[in-house]
Amino acid sequence: MLGKTCKEINIGDTAEFTKTVSEFDVYSFAGITGDMNPAHIDKTYASKTVFKQRISHGILCVGFISNVIAMQLPGPGAIYRNQNCQFVKPVYFGDTVTAIVEVTRKDEEKNKIWLRTYCINQDGDLVIDGDAVIMPRKEFEKK
Amino acid sequence: MLGKTCKEINIGDTAEFTKTVSEFDVYSFAGITGDMNPAHIDKTYASKTVFKQRISHGILCVGFISNVIAMQLPGPGAIYRNQNCQFVKPVYFGDTVTAIVEVTRKDEEKNKIWLRTYCINQDGDLVIDGDAVIMPRKEFEKK
Amino acid sequence: MLGKTCKEINIGDTAEFTKTVSEFDVYSFAGITGDMNPAHIDKTYASKTVFKQRISHGILCVGFISNVIAMQLPGPGAIYRNQNCQFVKPVYFGDTVTAIVEVTRKDEEKNKIWLRTYCINQDGDLVIDGDAVIMPRKEFEKK
Amino acid sequence: MLGKTCKEINIGDTAEFTKTVSEFDVYSFAGITGDMNPAHIDKTYASKTVFKQRISHGILCVGFISNVIAMQLPGPGAIYRNQNCQFVKPVYFGDTVTAIVEVTRKDEEKNKIWLRTYCINQDGDLVIDGDAVIMPRKEFEKK
Repeated sequence: MLGKTCKEINIGDTAEFTKTVSEFDVYSFAGITGDMNPAHIDKTYASKTVFKQRISHGILCVGFISNVIAMQLPGPGAIYRNQNCQFVKPVYFGDTVTAIVEVTRKDEEKNKIWLRTYCINQDGDLVIDGDAVIMPRKEFEKK
Repeated sequence: MLGKTCKEINIGDTAEFTKTVSEFDVYSFAGITGDMNPAHIDKTYASKTVFKQRISHGILCVGFISNVIAMQLPGPGAIYRNQNCQFVKPVYFGDTVTAIVEVTRKDEEKNKIWLRTYCINQDGDLVIDGDAVIMPRKEFEKK
Repeated sequence: MLGKTCKEINIGDTAEFTKTVSEFDVYSFAGITGDMNPAHIDKTYASKTVFKQRISHGILCVGFISNVIAMQLPGPGAIYRNQNCQFVKPVYFGDTVTAIVEVTRKDEEKNKIWLRTYCINQDGDLVIDGDAVIMPRKEFEKK
Repeated sequence: MLGKTCKEINIGDTAEFTKTVSEFDVYSFAGITGDMNPAHIDKTYASKTVFKQRISHGILCVGFISNVIAMQLPGPGAIYRNQNCQFVKPVYFGDTVTAIVEVTRKDEEKNKIWLRTYCINQDGDLVIDGDAVIMPRKEFEKK
């Protein structure tokens, strides 16, 4: 159940998670964060925006990145230090989003790894881009 | 219901949102993102970590920042371009988190504002720090 | 599964539903309605109010009344015409609320019944009072 | 973050909130209140009713009114005394409901305001009508 240590991680390693974003997801996220932006929950308003329909909260999809980092690369025991993200394109209800993380750099002495973190939709379009800094589980912590 | 335009926003403007983070919030967030890191949902595992108890997902609290941007400053009609965040301290179940955004710079020609975005807990401790870039609603869009 | 008709209902008939109001209930209700009043979701703010702690949304408990009307008296097939309510006392997280409806009047010709609708807490204190007007399922609708 | 005082409120002031009512909202509301009326959660049953399809709980939309009162007019610090509502038309899944409150009377001495509270759908049809009595935050409470 414990994640990888810095030593066990290599530059170029990748991991991903995919989910079709549903109205349930967006409405739940609106509910727990209080972000009731009409772009997310008001069909009539949304139809008049540049997007023509309701869209997902960007940060909800950043949650998928958090998932990949916490569950797979490096996985449990890691400490999340930084997340930068750029919202490139909208995510619509029903879009299938894949969050991908890729190790771009590591520093074993400082016990840190750098990740490119991004999300694409079902058409391969980049919807979120960014990077993260993580401190993987330390070697002496037992599995 | 529409948000402020670049012209209506001044450097130094602030807005905030406060919520006591509950188990419900963390469990819902885990459910919709799939981030089932045992640090968030496994009491036994969490008791053996450096935090001694279950903690919130950092990105959940970034959702509170998204709330303030989308609902208040600048409010509906804005486009979220970038969000950078640094996870400074853990947020425990039952902590009362205030997300605060403050305008630090604006460029009316490019229709962009820069915000410092951060979260503090009930003791005033900084738990998340960061910044965001936003394109407020354009002036010619009618209210 | 179908409810009572006007003929089958007598003045003085009562029905009730009891639930311990949890943080989950209040947070969910805040999420689906967008009612993020700090009195419901912010422990620090709530501690400074006259109530000293977070309280339930009043309308959430009116939902318990809706439950009794829809499920029991008169039950499925009825049409809810009016609900009046007075919020008498706060409902705290952990309070056990019983919603009670009692038939006070009926008019078979107009197919209408009048109910007193109220909620008490675990100490028997009246927390919500009010009345409702309902059109029970019509006799010729088959069960 | 605190709401308006009686003095700051004028007759004719209005505020509103809009949400597209989703299956998620209705199912969540059913779950927390226990109002499992088949009209709300049973497609087969609902198809045989006069409405031909599942409808929202009326009280869920009254929750949108509670939102506007608690968050905007008068906003935090107010005490909700009374809510009367009349269910005029059904709200279907996918309907976009706007809850509107309008100040119709105020009494500064008694610190009370009276509101007309109603909901319309995307076609402008009145679905809920009613009124509310509120005690706004008192003037001497500091912001």
